Amino acid sequence: MSQPGALMAAEIVEQPDAWRRLLGDGRGQVTTVAERIAAYAPTMVLFVARGTSDHAALYGKYLVEIVAQLPAGLVSPSTMTAYGARPRLDRVLMIGVSQSGGSPDLVQSLEVARAQGALTLAVTNQPGSPLARVAELEIDVRAGKERAVAATKSYTAQLLALYLIIDRLRGGDGSSAEALPALAEQVITNDHHVRELAQRYRFASRLVTTARGYSYATAREAALKLMETSYLGAQAFSGADLLHGPLAMIDPQVPVLTVVAPGVGGEAMQQVLPRLAEVGADVFCVGSPSAVAAASVGVALPAEVSEELSPLLEIIPFQQLALHLALARGGDPDAPRGLKKVTETL
Amino acid sequence: MSQPGALMAAEIVEQPDAWRRLLGDGRGQVTTVAERIAAYAPTMVLFVARGTSDHAALYGKYLVEIVAQLPAGLVSPSTMTAYGARPRLDRVLMIGVSQSGGSPDLVQSLEVARAQGALTLAVTNQPGSPLARVAELEIDVRAGKERAVAATKSYTAQLLALYLIIDRLRGGDGSSAEALPALAEQVITNDHHVRELAQRYRFASRLVTTARGYSYATAREAALKLMETSYLGAQAFSGADLLHGPLAMIDPQVPVLTVVAPGVGGEAMQQVLPRLAEVGADVFCVGSPSAVAAASVGVALPAEVSEELSPLLEIIPFQQLALHLALARGGDPDAPRGLKKVTETL
Repeated sequence: MSQPGALMAAEIVEQPDAWRRLLGDGRGQVTTVAERIAAYAPTMVLFVARGTSDHAALYGKYLVEIVAQLPAGLVSPSTMTAYGARPRLDRVLMIGVSQSGGSPDLVQSLEVARAQGALTLAVTNQPGSPLARVAELEIDVRAGKERAVAATKSYTAQLLALYLIIDRLRGGDGSSAEALPALAEQVITNDHHVRELAQRYRFASRLVTTARGYSYATAREAALKLMETSYLGAQAFSGADLLHGPLAMIDPQVPVLTVVAPGVGGEAMQQVLPRLAEVGADVFCVGSPSAVAAASVGVALPAEVSEELSPLLEIIPFQQLALHLALARGGDPDAPRGLKKVTETL
Repeated sequence: MSQPGALMAAEIVEQPDAWRRLLGDGRGQVTTVAERIAAYAPTMVLFVARGTSDHAALYGKYLVEIVAQLPAGLVSPSTMTAYGARPRLDRVLMIGVSQSGGSPDLVQSLEVARAQGALTLAVTNQPGSPLARVAELEIDVRAGKERAVAATKSYTAQLLALYLIIDRLRGGDGSSAEALPALAEQVITNDHHVRELAQRYRFASRLVTTARGYSYATAREAALKLMETSYLGAQAFSGADLLHGPLAMIDPQVPVLTVVAPGVGGEAMQQVLPRLAEVGADVFCVGSPSAVAAASVGVALPAEVSEELSPLLEIIPFQQLALHLALARGGDPDAPRGLKKVTETL
């Protein structure tokens, strides 16, 4: 029996090397996929995913809408499985995102989409998985076998794979991402600092995460990570949605974890932060040094990262927080109660 | 100064009459809109909304995918506002849903969508609102002035408006919805029972709501209603997503509020309920009499309602629960702390 959290801790640290594999060996596969997509010339992109992979899909949706300038949507798998919907999907690119590539509802969704005329792509960490077999195109995110139940390296590898595809579609060659592994190594060195910060939330029963734009995916994934490892109620809101109701339940007893990245999303958070201050919220911030300085506590990110790629770095302090908070609360993040590594839903 | 919660209580009761106005006076507007949409023959439908209206949009997304057999998506408004994305939207129907029709980001999103080639529709409770003025098509949901900060009657009127449009597109005449107001009157008579049930959650600090299919919108809206009136942490999950991680944080101290409607969505919940029982969860159920009998406590719905229309009735016991729980906890659901009736986000 290994140390509690040893798997998750190791996989957090493996992220830069996982990305290097995708940036190196994975390049050919990315190019092939991007060329097939460009030839198909989709008029819209749909994503289908669950759990952590759904947050990677959410990041992909922002990339598609903003960079590829195409309308995008997240499919509710049940409409094509349980409800048997058979929409016409000509000129639609449907991307299934899954660590294991094994959940039956995702496999069936891609199968139906392909039969209905869509171009289908599986983004998984398992070459030859059922999802990859039903799709016309495949990206192996090359994160290496993931053993911790709480996904970390497969998530950021999914983000990078989606980025590289969209970047290639706009004519990029992925070089904008080359500095990322080294930047992630810098971020990972905050581990000791994050372990200390985790003590602050040891007795919290619930907390809120919030961000806007690309970083909204980070807020969602951070909340899930904290829920599944530390058993607290963690709710994610887009900064705008927070002001439309949920702000009412925030008071000084409810920690608020924010992401304030450089660029448009971080600027949009400037509408939210003063409202949090008004209600006396305790604010943890991951983001630019100035935003972190204005918060109660936080972790500053390297200034070199672009807004589009910031989510790959932003999630790391939250992964570390989930790990250390789980340990502080007496849990084992490698074996959360009630969960299995691969969840099969119908 | 009126009694705490008097506005919200009155507006819950007004719902059947609001629906009657939409089914009567509103019919012509629904027909006109449906004819324009049919002539345009969209290949996909996008929704843009925030807060409670976003849950109506989620219901609309299921209707579009399952009944209209078209791909659908929920737009992140920021991509077209803050990020300035200008996607090509030919053959796209973009529906803005908003009680007030006043939030600048929604108005700008519809404006951009129209300029990019989309057919635009505003579904609001405010004829002549900014949102209605920028859209080519308009539906007034006719809920009457809503004064409580926690939206109730405008939400179910939005659901009904979306249902009537999609039903018309498949050749229906709305008669399938005619029995609804009388059924809602039956559901409303449970108020005393729900007030007693609310005592059960008086000291809860957080809870979870869950459902699948059409009813997932109900779970989302129920969670928001409880958060904004009763200041507790309420998290909504699709039943399938719950099994992909968040199940870990459910134990006997975290109440789980479920919707188990007749039909496909309710059947899919049969995969979830045994897992909740395994972890000893306390289960509140709104839905079919058999599902309610199997839960710890709950409210049974009239058997006559179809799955598609069930969300209009399902939300009523949750509205009542939010009202009575807020009062039991010493709050005033008509004046939640930190909230205004109309939220303007950019």
